[in-house]
Amino acid sequence: MTDFAIRYGEHVTRARRDGRPVVALESTIISHGLPHPDNLRVAREIEQTVRDNGAVPATIGMIGGDLVVGLDDDQVRHLALAEDVAKLSVRDLAVAAARRADGATTVAATSAVAAAAEIGVFATGGLGGVHREASVTFDESADLVTLARTPIVVVCAGVKSILDVGATLERLETLGVAVAGYRTRRFPGFFVTDGGFDIDWELDSPEQVADVIRARADQAIGAGALILANPLPTDEQLDPALHDRTLREGLALLARDGITGKAVTPFLLAHFHETTEGQSLAVNVRIILRNAALAARIAVASTATPATLGFSVPA
Amino acid sequence: MTDFAIRYGEHVTRARRDGRPVVALESTIISHGLPHPDNLRVAREIEQTVRDNGAVPATIGMIGGDLVVGLDDDQVRHLALAEDVAKLSVRDLAVAAARRADGATTVAATSAVAAAAEIGVFATGGLGGVHREASVTFDESADLVTLARTPIVVVCAGVKSILDVGATLERLETLGVAVAGYRTRRFPGFFVTDGGFDIDWELDSPEQVADVIRARADQAIGAGALILANPLPTDEQLDPALHDRTLREGLALLARDGITGKAVTPFLLAHFHETTEGQSLAVNVRIILRNAALAARIAVASTATPATLGFSVPA
Amino acid sequence: MTDFAIRYGEHVTRARRDGRPVVALESTIISHGLPHPDNLRVAREIEQTVRDNGAVPATIGMIGGDLVVGLDDDQVRHLALAEDVAKLSVRDLAVAAARRADGATTVAATSAVAAAAEIGVFATGGLGGVHREASVTFDESADLVTLARTPIVVVCAGVKSILDVGATLERLETLGVAVAGYRTRRFPGFFVTDGGFDIDWELDSPEQVADVIRARADQAIGAGALILANPLPTDEQLDPALHDRTLREGLALLARDGITGKAVTPFLLAHFHETTEGQSLAVNVRIILRNAALAARIAVASTATPATLGFSVPA
Ligand SMILES: [Mn+2]
Ligand SMILES: [Mn+2]
Ligand SMILES: [Mn+2]
Repeated sequence: MTDFAIRYGEHVTRARRDGRPVVALESTIISHGLPHPDNLRVAREIEQTVRDNGAVPATIGMIGGDLVVGLDDDQVRHLALAEDVAKLSVRDLAVAAARRADGATTVAATSAVAAAAEIGVFATGGLGGVHREASVTFDESADLVTLARTPIVVVCAGVKSILDVGATLERLETLGVAVAGYRTRRFPGFFVTDGGFDIDWELDSPEQVADVIRARADQAIGAGALILANPLPTDEQLDPALHDRTLREGLALLARDGITGKAVTPFLLAHFHETTEGQSLAVNVRIILRNAALAARIAVASTATPATLGFSVPA
Repeated sequence: MTDFAIRYGEHVTRARRDGRPVVALESTIISHGLPHPDNLRVAREIEQTVRDNGAVPATIGMIGGDLVVGLDDDQVRHLALAEDVAKLSVRDLAVAAARRADGATTVAATSAVAAAAEIGVFATGGLGGVHREASVTFDESADLVTLARTPIVVVCAGVKSILDVGATLERLETLGVAVAGYRTRRFPGFFVTDGGFDIDWELDSPEQVADVIRARADQAIGAGALILANPLPTDEQLDPALHDRTLREGLALLARDGITGKAVTPFLLAHFHETTEGQSLAVNVRIILRNAALAARIAVASTATPATLGFSVPA
Repeated sequence: MTDFAIRYGEHVTRARRDGRPVVALESTIISHGLPHPDNLRVAREIEQTVRDNGAVPATIGMIGGDLVVGLDDDQVRHLALAEDVAKLSVRDLAVAAARRADGATTVAATSAVAAAAEIGVFATGGLGGVHREASVTFDESADLVTLARTPIVVVCAGVKSILDVGATLERLETLGVAVAGYRTRRFPGFFVTDGGFDIDWELDSPEQVADVIRARADQAIGAGALILANPLPTDEQLDPALHDRTLREGLALLARDGITGKAVTPFLLAHFHETTEGQSLAVNVRIILRNAALAARIAVASTATPATLGFSVPA
């Protein structure tokens, strides 16, 4: 009988055995977030950035029904090049396994699997959220609910501006997901440094973030994720005027062509890519590389002493 | 001092001891879903259908404050005939016990109690969901939130068309409740075969559903329920034109008479019953019997080898 | 290395050791809910009321990053007098600890910390809820989601009428939070006895509430909080006509001045205080003292025999 338990890549197995810092990485950016052939190149750069900052990368995805923490290079290449790679949220993981599917994990699924694998830090680009018009369509990302019950730090550049950022921040508060800015009190807007909203808390160093991880474990009251919002420096962001114009046009095209649901995010990202003549892609890559570096430094700070995550040391 | 722990009917106690397949059944359909005297007859037919397909039925309800898994025939008769049987969702179970109430369990309560009793499959008619106008009234069934944290397979014919089916599917995605069609990629509309929406996953055999159950346990990331949508064959559905006309009229009557809250579902089911001259009741009964048969076959497939649910074998 | 585990005040440590009844109390009412100098006086009166009714008060808050269950009088005074006391919901607790903040705990945070400390009863004034206009703003208190997963009895006078009470009751149902009236079937409106909505369940004595606590533990299906709505007697409420006029004016002022988010509740409470010439404050104090007395009697009834909460006795 098939065993559907999580598989660990060799490098992750070694890191867990030796108590070395590990950073979780998602695969949706590989399969659905970036155009080919940039996706494979960037996936490798993200992993290398984690290594360059002292941690072990654990890219998460599904290969033929096997849920893998720490895909190897062949597996990453497969998710980058194969067609029919499913986009897997937490609810899809068991069904996809039973169907022996190939799949890329979303922010929600990557977070949940990483936490189950006792990985405390996860680097991504932007978080899912509440869609514009959600008060009519009820279209809200599963990322929010999942993060509310998942003990992990998600390093991201805020919420994609194609969503309703204000409503997303309210939902995060309602659901009990912590939000802090990394060296800022302004919530970033993914492509742009300032997304237009204040946040209550600021954290200023990897060591301070590691203290949050330890405090959550020590307090032991079942708190969920910390969204650590890491904005691009203003001189690396997408030009805000270009951003606003591109967003307006993209939303108009969505409405005109009746595009909804899971098709929205890939469509808008492609629209940004074309309209900005590749600048949005370059910004997107800078975001994820910066987040990978910060996540690695947090993982290092968090494993400076044994058992800081409150977990038993793996055998 | 009273002990409020779950009581098990004798047949369920024996089945648990022997590791035989068990199917959970709800009692709201008995007390509130079907008119007397059909309700008692149908309750017995549902249990017999489970037995005919190789599993042991465990109808769940509350008798005088006792929460019972596996009501006996006298107890089923009591819930079918008594007045003042409360409709119990999960949140009501402890209060109703303290009040020594008689009560029928909803989809939410039945699922939660079944999972606590280590029963992996539950057959019902249709799921609760997001009500029309919910963006103003906030009226959304507790079924959805409960299923998000309850490891069980719910075999149903989709969501009752009296609800906002599209919004319900969005909420299930947001909350992380898995949805698959049984031999279909179209989400059924309870009385009608096709409810108007696509679904992402299809499962084709009881064995494949059993694989989902096992994958969820093996992956161990805290995933919730699987909604297995089992549509009626088109030649057994309610005539779609009659269905649409009846629904339109029923909604208009609700608005005219100001009927809201817990009174809505019984009212609309009665309206369907009258307007269709009993056809809706016959369809409803076919749905639940078909679902009971499929659930039993899944339970059998799921207990083909020991401990497939990842639970310890009861002593 | 700092340890961020919950600290217990000496009186609470002794009570836990001896198995004596304990009532949790929040600190937001001290730091943000009542004007100085009434806040310090009332905080002490609440604690004394708990003692007068046979239980030990455990006021919860954060001092310099330490999460304390059972603040001593110096610490209560500090939270009453200090500026820059943060308002802490559950999601803020770990971040605030890492920042070594002073903080007052909301209903959500107090409930979660109390349950982690194995305290079964919590007295407060009114519950947070769904804000008016929430279908546009998505502004809903984190109290609701937290209570859905927290096993505690919250004795309160319903939901503040500055919120959307009907939508809040729907959300409580959707999320699975139990609601019962103490000797009433009408949901109170905080300042006024009757908030305009029916509730399904009534509980009539501390012993009956203790039975609910025991039933929840015995049933062991993961149910969350019980909201025990304890209305003021009609001759102690704020005059309903004065209440309605003050509320209407306050809402108009909010709109005029563009006040939103965390500023709303302090603003409206101050408006009520001024417009009613202090009557609203007197009513608010009567509410919390009555709730503290009832909570103490429930805690006493609930500890009448060992281990009634289903917890192991602390060493
Ligand atoms: Mn969506
Ligand atoms: Mn409802
Ligand atoms: Mn709010």
